[in-house]
Amino acid sequence: MKQSRLFYKTLKQDPKDEEAVNAKLLVRAGFIDKVAAGIYSYLPLGQRVLVKIENIIREEMDAIGGQEMLLPVLHPKEFWVQTGRWDSMPVLFKLKGANNKEFTLGPTHEEIITPLAKKIIFSYKDLPKYVYQIQTKFRNEARSKSGLLRGREFVMKDLYSFHKDEQGLDKYYERVARAYEKILARLSLGDISVRTFASGGSFSQYSHEYQTLCDAGEDEIYLCKQCNIAVNQELIKEQNVCPQCNNNQLEKKRAIEVGNIFKLKTKFSNACQLTYKAGDGHGKPVFMGCYGFGPSRVMGTLVEIFHDEKGIIWPAAVAPYKYHLLNLSKNDKVKLTADEIYRELSKKEEVLYNDRQDISPGEKLAEADLIGLPYRLVVSDKTHGQLEFKKRNENKTQLRNLKELF
Amino acid sequence: MKQSRLFYKTLKQDPKDEEAVNAKLLVRAGFIDKVAAGIYSYLPLGQRVLVKIENIIREEMDAIGGQEMLLPVLHPKEFWVQTGRWDSMPVLFKLKGANNKEFTLGPTHEEIITPLAKKIIFSYKDLPKYVYQIQTKFRNEARSKSGLLRGREFVMKDLYSFHKDEQGLDKYYERVARAYEKILARLSLGDISVRTFASGGSFSQYSHEYQTLCDAGEDEIYLCKQCNIAVNQELIKEQNVCPQCNNNQLEKKRAIEVGNIFKLKTKFSNACQLTYKAGDGHGKPVFMGCYGFGPSRVMGTLVEIFHDEKGIIWPAAVAPYKYHLLNLSKNDKVKLTADEIYRELSKKEEVLYNDRQDISPGEKLAEADLIGLPYRLVVSDKTHGQLEFKKRNENKTQLRNLKELF
Repeated sequence: MKQSRLFYKTLKQDPKDEEAVNAKLLVRAGFIDKVAAGIYSYLPLGQRVLVKIENIIREEMDAIGGQEMLLPVLHPKEFWVQTGRWDSMPVLFKLKGANNKEFTLGPTHEEIITPLAKKIIFSYKDLPKYVYQIQTKFRNEARSKSGLLRGREFVMKDLYSFHKDEQGLDKYYERVARAYEKILARLSLGDISVRTFASGGSFSQYSHEYQTLCDAGEDEIYLCKQCNIAVNQELIKEQNVCPQCNNNQLEKKRAIEVGNIFKLKTKFSNACQLTYKAGDGHGKPVFMGCYGFGPSRVMGTLVEIFHDEKGIIWPAAVAPYKYHLLNLSKNDKVKLTADEIYRELSKKEEVLYNDRQDISPGEKLAEADLIGLPYRLVVSDKTHGQLEFKKRNENKTQLRNLKELF
Repeated sequence: MKQSRLFYKTLKQDPKDEEAVNAKLLVRAGFIDKVAAGIYSYLPLGQRVLVKIENIIREEMDAIGGQEMLLPVLHPKEFWVQTGRWDSMPVLFKLKGANNKEFTLGPTHEEIITPLAKKIIFSYKDLPKYVYQIQTKFRNEARSKSGLLRGREFVMKDLYSFHKDEQGLDKYYERVARAYEKILARLSLGDISVRTFASGGSFSQYSHEYQTLCDAGEDEIYLCKQCNIAVNQELIKEQNVCPQCNNNQLEKKRAIEVGNIFKLKTKFSNACQLTYKAGDGHGKPVFMGCYGFGPSRVMGTLVEIFHDEKGIIWPAAVAPYKYHLLNLSKNDKVKLTADEIYRELSKKEEVLYNDRQDISPGEKLAEADLIGLPYRLVVSDKTHGQLEFKKRNENKTQLRNLKELF
């Protein structure tokens, strides 16, 4: 992508209406634009990052048998009345459509998927089933000051699983946990994310959150360094020891909840009368699990973790482009060399090429650091047909030939 | 995909709450599920079709320099007041969030993209720019009885272009027209879709719609057989001749509007004060175009056009899978052969494999016709290690070896 064509503008100063580091940097670097508190547009650079995060999640969901669907944003009121959450969930955006029909914007989709599963699951032969969706969801938050960490409008992956019995649910629950660990490793968040015990609600002893350690996080977790697991704030009030080793020396840390896994068991299948005919001919309730992971929140988390005073430092797996090619020369011959390098390299790799004539070399270098692609390639009057190669997270530069890049 | 695992259920009877052929067939065949009038869930089969349609559109938008973005669903009221459409557009879903802040759910995104462009476009050097989004949009329709042809919640591609002057806009407008023709050809709708002249509003003489001829369509168009173009219902009241050849023997046809292209010119840039500094130093208004194409409506259109009394007949480019492999035998040895064919074929091709033991051969054949994949492959007690090959849109069957398929 030639930067002269890219729909973006970087800012030299932090935007005045943002408090969170992730929002300041993503707005400054031209990845997102604020429309209202907790509501953002994703510009082309931001959209590329978001899709890469989504695709990592998608691949790992497919690998554990998940089938992708698309569920509606508009949920009729009666679906939420049936489960008792129309009045009990404070974050619902409610609205009226034609004929005064009432809706909420979906913050989560148990109310839609469970009645749908009733049309599909009748017999033990129809179980298990695993379905997921990656789509925009909504929470009418009272406050939203953390950029992409707490959106009123955000992108969410939710996987729902349906099982004959609790053993089937338990087994799949751990498969999802393994998939989440793979996702976090691919996002470069594996080493700083911990499985965190949370309350399981009225039916299960525990649920689990995936919490990424980060001072900017809104959550407090209590870390057991022996087991490398944690306990969340709600659960610590009930039990102030590690649920695995009973260690009571837990360390308080700030963290961002990037995912959660929850055994719904029969909570929603009872509310919606989702039953199946077992091998013995009797009707039994379906056991359900739900498993959330937030791509847009992850995007904010990555920026909170991977940045320096100059800008963002994207992990290669989610960077909008791998290489940032800069032409720092005004010389026509050097420009031709840079153009040629761009043409050749972009046949094989994702390259952003700063070909703009209207900004100075210094501005180009500063902008490259701000945007934060993994590899910077500079062509200038001093490189003599070669490239100056630099990793975003290192200081040393090297002269290289194009063919050495492959 | 093994059908024993697929999240779907086919219906032998038409659903009672649908009038439109597309909705009846898509619900019966397990592609979509109705949540409320004009609001559907896309099951895994439906999601695959939708994504394939989106990807065809995406490729052609990228080919004309379009950059993909993601814009919000929640639009603050003040953005729509600025352009005067808060009160003038009757189909807005309006709602209030925290602190009584008012929003509409985006039915289109001029109100968001124009103020955003103001932060990006300052000089003639920043022009032209082309950006698009493929995302869920909303219209609070009074009636919604045409299945996917008129959703209250639907998937829409909107491309927006920004130009220095009218000539630039005119030229790009025709590039988009060519891209739309390519999209329609790839969707197998090229031969039955016509560029249709429509009113250009207060600034342009004409805009254009892409109308697919179909008796189930909600639109009436007036076709000039000499030019193979048409005039829409609104415009025919002003001029009852072909705008190209002045022929007044226009033929009335029913059609579905799958896309439209519109020269906004300076309508929205004036409302939002989107100007740029020209080469001569003067501020000038940016010229804009907008270009819509509806993936979910196209999905409904394809079913209206490509079906018979047995079910859907998907064009290969958007079929959820290319091959439908059916095992009609109860014999264990034949099942092993079918399993092996599935394993081999699915390494190279998209295959749906009806491995279910709980339904009869007759039901499997009927279901294959209903689901409508391009190629049916039957393994039975009579095929002796070979496959019975049949195209969905032909009656003849042939015995083939697996290797002949490639």
